[in-house]
Amino acid sequence: VLNEFGLIEHLRSRFAAQGRVELGIGDDAALLRLASPGAAVLVTVDLVAEGTHFLMPPATPRQVGRKALAVNLSDIAAMAGRPETAFVAVALPRPRGSEFALELFEGMAELAAEFDVAVAGGDTNIWDGPLVISITLLGTATGRGPVLRRGARPGDWLMVTGPLGGSLSGRHLAFTPRIHAAQQIHQTVELHALIDLSDGLSRDLPHLTTEQGLGATVEARHVPIHPDVPVHLPFETRLRHALDDGEDFELLLAVSPEDGQRLLDAPPPGVTIVRIGEVTAAPARCLLRSPDGREEPLTAGGYEHRF
Amino acid sequence: VLNEFGLIEHLRSRFAAQGRVELGIGDDAALLRLASPGAAVLVTVDLVAEGTHFLMPPATPRQVGRKALAVNLSDIAAMAGRPETAFVAVALPRPRGSEFALELFEGMAELAAEFDVAVAGGDTNIWDGPLVISITLLGTATGRGPVLRRGARPGDWLMVTGPLGGSLSGRHLAFTPRIHAAQQIHQTVELHALIDLSDGLSRDLPHLTTEQGLGATVEARHVPIHPDVPVHLPFETRLRHALDDGEDFELLLAVSPEDGQRLLDAPPPGVTIVRIGEVTAAPARCLLRSPDGREEPLTAGGYEHRF
Repeated sequence: VLNEFGLIEHLRSRFAAQGRVELGIGDDAALLRLASPGAAVLVTVDLVAEGTHFLMPPATPRQVGRKALAVNLSDIAAMAGRPETAFVAVALPRPRGSEFALELFEGMAELAAEFDVAVAGGDTNIWDGPLVISITLLGTATGRGPVLRRGARPGDWLMVTGPLGGSLSGRHLAFTPRIHAAQQIHQTVELHALIDLSDGLSRDLPHLTTEQGLGATVEARHVPIHPDVPVHLPFETRLRHALDDGEDFELLLAVSPEDGQRLLDAPPPGVTIVRIGEVTAAPARCLLRSPDGREEPLTAGGYEHRF
Repeated sequence: VLNEFGLIEHLRSRFAAQGRVELGIGDDAALLRLASPGAAVLVTVDLVAEGTHFLMPPATPRQVGRKALAVNLSDIAAMAGRPETAFVAVALPRPRGSEFALELFEGMAELAAEFDVAVAGGDTNIWDGPLVISITLLGTATGRGPVLRRGARPGDWLMVTGPLGGSLSGRHLAFTPRIHAAQQIHQTVELHALIDLSDGLSRDLPHLTTEQGLGATVEARHVPIHPDVPVHLPFETRLRHALDDGEDFELLLAVSPEDGQRLLDAPPPGVTIVRIGEVTAAPARCLLRSPDGREEPLTAGGYEHRF
């Protein structure tokens, strides 16, 4: 059994400074040299909390550690950037002990290694509350620059990198952040706008459209529904799962029709790409077109976080 | 009353991107150009949690917001660096409502403005647990480079930037991070090693000494005891408060005797500096020398965080 200082000592050797990290865990601050000193620095932070973003059980500490980093990687993917260095702050539930903490960090370490991310610092706290993990991830834009939420144009195709819905049955703990897909697509075509789907398509689409003074039409029959959504349900119910469930962590992108067609004709290796609709010039009108051609407002479903 | 999205909208205008922040709150990640593109980047993260780092009451949300940023500023001070950009992740207790959240962010905003720190992003969550704030602060080293915990030499003087002890009676919510003192001292002399006193002198001193294969002798009669430690207590009790209480957020530094004398003779404007002892070559022997010349091990007191 380790105390807080023992745990920090363990993390210090587990995440020894190397490469771009001049000074990692163990001083008052970390010291970095960024891979591309001239490039813009991307920074994202996500906090995940027990009872809100996951339940334990069914989630294991290893899965939760992985997820806490994965949601940050997804944010860097949504800028079409390269992840570099992570900083991990945790509030660890005292009764669960140090073995739990070690498992948590192993889950992070595995995903960090997979994406060549260095864990360079953090803050380890033991308390009597539920598990809270806040990770800050630094990255850099690729040579083609970052891709923002703004930039879509009327007539652009809206595309997603995979099927949606049903994530909370387990996929939200094991999804692959679309870092590689974003970089591949970014190299292949001119991405106008990009976001990752964390709150559900119906809630996230307005960030690319309504907030930019634009609208959208989504074709119900083109929305890819994930096999995690039970097949015995009626189509309308399955569609609402795909639109509203959230935690898909697929990318939603806007590209010109020519670039969209290019992606459909020759998707980059290993990248799934599906056209789901298009951007319109109608301000703030996000529509859902049903298979019979009827159009209705695409209302934001899913969970709204309120006081 | 604001929901989560309303709150984010508020923060987006309250912390509008400017200067070194190309893209602030409102996209998937922030986009920064660092003030000194060639310089090393300093990164620190601190998580503060209700019940562990503060109690509410007596602390107000504005005080807690201020403190959450102040502890990070103290870490950048402990590298003699310049703070630049902060990222704020919060888990807000649902029952306390949005007014509470706004006050919390105002407390941060005031201190950020005082130290020219931009709040460039974060993650806002509403949950049913206690208040948790995790702030990541990016900074840069000054032209004279960062100052680490390692680097002290036998014979160095140990000095602190102010009186110690009694912080938990209220000062821990209102302390001034020693950013300016650190920079002033760093310009004036050659700092060998530097740390901020968060866990108490008896716990933090070994980071500069024991962990570097060195020892220290601290002169009990030279340890400055803060007026927050009740004067009616016996000297020994008051001294233990100064050594063990923690949350002083003064700096502890090691400099050559010549540089130490220079600092005593002509302290930089507005900087308090007190000599409390010296570094020795005796590995892992931190001693406390009492006024009558008796030496005893300086044991680590204060609170140890355990599972």
